[in-house]
Amino acid sequence: VQRPERVVTMAASFAVSVDLPANRKGSDLSRNAELLAELVDATATRPVSGLERACEDIATELLARHGYAREAAVQAEAEYFLQRGISEARRSFEDYRLLAEARASRGPSGVSVTRSIGAEAVGMTACPCAMEGAREMLLAEYPALADPSLRDLPMITHNQRNRTRLVFELGPRAEVEADEMIRAIEEAQSSPTYAILKRGDEAQVVLNAHRRPKFVEDVLRDLLGGVARRFPTLPDPTLVRAQTESEESIHKYDVVAAHQVTLGELRRGGPAPT
Amino acid sequence: VQRPERVVTMAASFAVSVDLPANRKGSDLSRNAELLAELVDATATRPVSGLERACEDIATELLARHGYAREAAVQAEAEYFLQRGISEARRSFEDYRLLAEARASRGPSGVSVTRSIGAEAVGMTACPCAMEGAREMLLAEYPALADPSLRDLPMITHNQRNRTRLVFELGPRAEVEADEMIRAIEEAQSSPTYAILKRGDEAQVVLNAHRRPKFVEDVLRDLLGGVARRFPTLPDPTLVRAQTESEESIHKYDVVAAHQVTLGELRRGGPAPT
Amino acid sequence: VQRPERVVTMAASFAVSVDLPANRKGSDLSRNAELLAELVDATATRPVSGLERACEDIATELLARHGYAREAAVQAEAEYFLQRGISEARRSFEDYRLLAEARASRGPSGVSVTRSIGAEAVGMTACPCAMEGAREMLLAEYPALADPSLRDLPMITHNQRNRTRLVFELGPRAEVEADEMIRAIEEAQSSPTYAILKRGDEAQVVLNAHRRPKFVEDVLRDLLGGVARRFPTLPDPTLVRAQTESEESIHKYDVVAAHQVTLGELRRGGPAPT
Amino acid sequence: VQRPERVVTMAASFAVSVDLPANRKGSDLSRNAELLAELVDATATRPVSGLERACEDIATELLARHGYAREAAVQAEAEYFLQRGISEARRSFEDYRLLAEARASRGPSGVSVTRSIGAEAVGMTACPCAMEGAREMLLAEYPALADPSLRDLPMITHNQRNRTRLVFELGPRAEVEADEMIRAIEEAQSSPTYAILKRGDEAQVVLNAHRRPKFVEDVLRDLLGGVARRFPTLPDPTLVRAQTESEESIHKYDVVAAHQVTLGELRRGGPAPT
Repeated sequence: VQRPERVVTMAASFAVSVDLPANRKGSDLSRNAELLAELVDATATRPVSGLERACEDIATELLARHGYAREAAVQAEAEYFLQRGISEARRSFEDYRLLAEARASRGPSGVSVTRSIGAEAVGMTACPCAMEGAREMLLAEYPALADPSLRDLPMITHNQRNRTRLVFELGPRAEVEADEMIRAIEEAQSSPTYAILKRGDEAQVVLNAHRRPKFVEDVLRDLLGGVARRFPTLPDPTLVRAQTESEESIHKYDVVAAHQVTLGELRRGGPAPT
Repeated sequence: VQRPERVVTMAASFAVSVDLPANRKGSDLSRNAELLAELVDATATRPVSGLERACEDIATELLARHGYAREAAVQAEAEYFLQRGISEARRSFEDYRLLAEARASRGPSGVSVTRSIGAEAVGMTACPCAMEGAREMLLAEYPALADPSLRDLPMITHNQRNRTRLVFELGPRAEVEADEMIRAIEEAQSSPTYAILKRGDEAQVVLNAHRRPKFVEDVLRDLLGGVARRFPTLPDPTLVRAQTESEESIHKYDVVAAHQVTLGELRRGGPAPT
Repeated sequence: VQRPERVVTMAASFAVSVDLPANRKGSDLSRNAELLAELVDATATRPVSGLERACEDIATELLARHGYAREAAVQAEAEYFLQRGISEARRSFEDYRLLAEARASRGPSGVSVTRSIGAEAVGMTACPCAMEGAREMLLAEYPALADPSLRDLPMITHNQRNRTRLVFELGPRAEVEADEMIRAIEEAQSSPTYAILKRGDEAQVVLNAHRRPKFVEDVLRDLLGGVARRFPTLPDPTLVRAQTESEESIHKYDVVAAHQVTLGELRRGGPAPT
Repeated sequence: VQRPERVVTMAASFAVSVDLPANRKGSDLSRNAELLAELVDATATRPVSGLERACEDIATELLARHGYAREAAVQAEAEYFLQRGISEARRSFEDYRLLAEARASRGPSGVSVTRSIGAEAVGMTACPCAMEGAREMLLAEYPALADPSLRDLPMITHNQRNRTRLVFELGPRAEVEADEMIRAIEEAQSSPTYAILKRGDEAQVVLNAHRRPKFVEDVLRDLLGGVARRFPTLPDPTLVRAQTESEESIHKYDVVAAHQVTLGELRRGGPAPT
C-alpha cells in the first residue's frame, strides 16, 4: 500500500462473495482466487493507494467476471504498524488493524460501489466508578487525604486493555486517512499503550490514564463526539460505526459499548451509545 | 464427576494417543473413539471420582486394546465452576479450568501409570514497580502526600487480568483436591476477581489488589512457596509445574513467568522461577 | 434444560446488552451479572424449557431492572450432544451447537420480545464438479469404465468437513425443536459424520457422501427447500437464516454460502442463495 | 528477510524469555521490547539472512543485556508465501508458516546457542483404509469393476486438509533452506493444494491424491524417511521433529501423528512414529 510518505507491505486477509441467481447451480470460485492472485501480482509493481481501494477494485472486477451476479462484496483485514512512544526517545512499532469493505451492485444505470474503511487500536481505560468508591473508602481510613491540596489526587482504580474500532461507510470519492482514525481512537481512550516503557515512563502512562478515567460508554461517546470535527470534509450522510471493548481486570468477562450514527446526526447533536 | 458434596457435570475435551511400532502401518483409531464413548456412557450411571482418574482409566484401557503399543497418553481439559463472592451476600459462579493427564507404559513388570492434575484460575495483579514510580511522581506534585499518616496509602498503578496454572505430577495413590489448587492460585494473585460486584465491592477488590501489588514473578514465587505447606501429604518426588500470565494493561503484549520444581526441592529451599 | 425425555446440563455462554439514553453516563453492569447468576441458581432447582426461553426471560428482566433502557438483547451459545451412529450398534455422542437470541423492546403498549433459535452441525460434503471432471479423466484412461453397468458408479472427488447453521426468528408463541433442526442440517449435507466408525462403516459413510455430491450452494438450497415442509406449524412471517461453510480439502481457504428468507417466501417459491 | 533471490517482508510474532536467579525479584522487561524494536529498525536498512538468525541474534543480545540471566530463549513464527501451481499457467501465492527458535546459555567457556528452524504446510491426504473398504463394497455392487484393466482404478475415499510441520534443531553453523523443507512436506502428503484450480485442474489434484492415499502415519514416515537424503550436509546429531494433523472429513475430530529422531538414527534405519 502506498502511504503518504512510504510504501507499506501488509499481510491482509480477504473475504470475497457474489450473489447467485435462483436458476444457477453454483458460483465459479476459481475466478475469485484468480482475481486475488492478480491483485497481489499487480501490487508488486504498482502499490495500491489504500486497502479500501483494493477492495473496491476487486468488487467491481468480481461483477465483471461473474456476469450472472448482481452484488459482489469484499472484506479485508490487515495488520498495520505505526511508530509511537511515550516520548521522542522511546519510539517503537505499535500494532493496529486496518479494516476495509466494498460492495458493488449492478443496477439499471451501471455498477455502483459503496466502501467502508476502519481501524482498530488497543489502549487502556481506568474505571471512574471504582475510583470514586476507592476515594471514599480511603478518605475514611486516611483523614489526611481530606487536605484541600489533595482534592484532585488521582486515586486507585481498576484499569485494563481497551480495544476500540472505528469504521466509516464512505461515499464515492470520499477519502479517510487511517492514521487519523487511529489517533482519534487513542485520544478517546484513557491512554494509549506502548511496547517500550522505562520505569519513569510506566508511571507517566499510569498517571495519564488515571487523570482521564473512562467507562467504555465514555470512550464511545468521546470518540464519536470528536469525529465530526476531525473529519470535516466527509459529507453528512457518511455512516459511522464504533465499538469499544474493555477486558475488565476485576471481572472475568469483557464489557462492550457500540453505536452507529451518521456524521450529519453527530453534527446536529450528540450520540446515544448503546 | 463425583465431588465431595455433589455430582458435577463437566464439558471436557480429551486428546488420546498411543505409540506405534516401526513394523505397523497405522493405529486403529476407532478403538479410541469407542473407549471415550464407553466412558461417557459409564459416567451416566456411575460418576468418576475425578478427571485425572478418568484419564488414568482410559490410558490403561488404551494399552489393553492396542496390544502393539508400549505407551498411551490421555490429556483432558474441562470447564469448572465454583461459587465465590467478595462477601457472603454476593455469590456467583466463577469459571475455572481443570487439567488432567495420564501416561500408561507397558514394562517388563506390567503397566505403570503416571498422572498429573492441574487447575487454572483468572484473577488480577497490580504492578509494584509502576506503583513506586507513581508514588515518587505524585509526591513531587502533592507535597501533602509526605504526611507520615499517608506512608502506606496505596498508590495508583497498572493492573490487569492474570491467568495462572498449577499442575502436579502425582505418584500412584496420591490425591489432590482441585478446589484447594484453585484457592492456592487465587491467594497468590493480587486479588481474585468476581462476576458480581456492587459499587462498594468494586472499590474493595481494587483496594485489596493494590495492597498486594505483584509481578508475575511474585505470583509464581508465592504460589510455589505455599504449595509445600498446603499439600503436606504429597511426597517429595512430586513434580510441580506453574505458569502465570499477565495481560499487561499498559502494553499490548502479555508477560509470562513459569517454573517447574519438585516438592522436595520446595521443602528444602525456595524456587528460582524463570 | 428440560428436553422432551431428559434434563440436559449445558455449558452456555451469554452476551447481554441494553441501550443507554443520551443523558445517562453509564450502565449498571452488576445487574446483568446478578441476573445471569440468578438464572443459574434457578435452573438448579427448575430446568428451563429451552435456551431461547432462558434468553427471553433474561431480556425481559433486563428491561425491568434497567428502567432507563428501551431495548435489551441476549445471545447464547451452548454445546449440545446427541447420540448418533451409522448403525444401531455404533452409537456415540456427537457434538453440535445450540444458538439462541432474544430482544426485548419497551414500547407504548408494553414490552415486546422477538426470539431466535438456531443449531449448528458439522458433516461432510463431496464436490460434484470435481467428480464430473474425474469421471471424464478416468474414462479416457480406463475404457472399461464405459460399461453401461458402471454408469452410476460413484467417482472420486474431494470431500471435506461442512459446518452448517440454521436459525429461525420466531414469533411470540412459536416453538422449534432443536433436534429437528439438527436433523434438517444433517440431511442437507452429503453425509453426517460420526465419532465411531469401524472399517466397513467408514466405506459406507464415504459411499453415502459420494452418492449425494453437493456444493455448499446445494446444501443451502436443500436445507432451505426442506424447511417449510419440516416445520409446518411455523407461520409465514418467520425469518429463516442459513449459512454453510466448506473446509475445502483441495484449497487452503474455506467456501461459504448464506441466505435469509421468510418461510412464506419459501412456501411460495425456491430460495435464491447468495 | 534476505532470501536467495529477493527480500521478503514477513509479519512475525516473537516470544522472548530469560531465566531469573532466586535472589532477584523481577526481570527488566523493557529491555526485551527495546531489543525487538532495534531488530525491526535494523532490518529496515539491512535484511536478516533468516528468521532463525534473527532469533539467534536476539537470544545472544538478551544474555548480554540481562547480566543476571544464564539462559535466554526466543521463538518466532511468521507467515510465508511461495508461488505454486498445478501447472505453469496457474501460479498463485500459497501460504505457509516459518518457525524458528534460539536458546542462548551462559557457560564457563562463554555463551553457546542452539537454534531450530521449521516450516508448516497445509496439503491434503486421502485415506487408504476407507479406499480399500469402498473397493470391496463397490465390487460387490458392480461386478464389471472386476475387469482386470480396472485393477488400479483409484476408488472413492475420504480426503481432507492435512497440516504438517517439520523442525530441525541445528548445530552452530548448519543452514537449512526453508523452501526445501516445504517441498519435503508437500511431497510427503497425498497432494499439495492450490488457491487457483480450473475445472480440469481440480480433477487432476483429486486424482493425484487418490493415487497416493496416506494415513497421517504414512505422511510422517515418508517425510522422515526422505529427510536424510534431502538434507545431506546436516550432521548426524541434528534432531528432527515432525508432526502431521488430519482434519478428518468423516469425523468431527482431528488425528495427529508425531515423532522426533536424530538424522543419524534416520540414516541408520527407519523411524518409528508415534
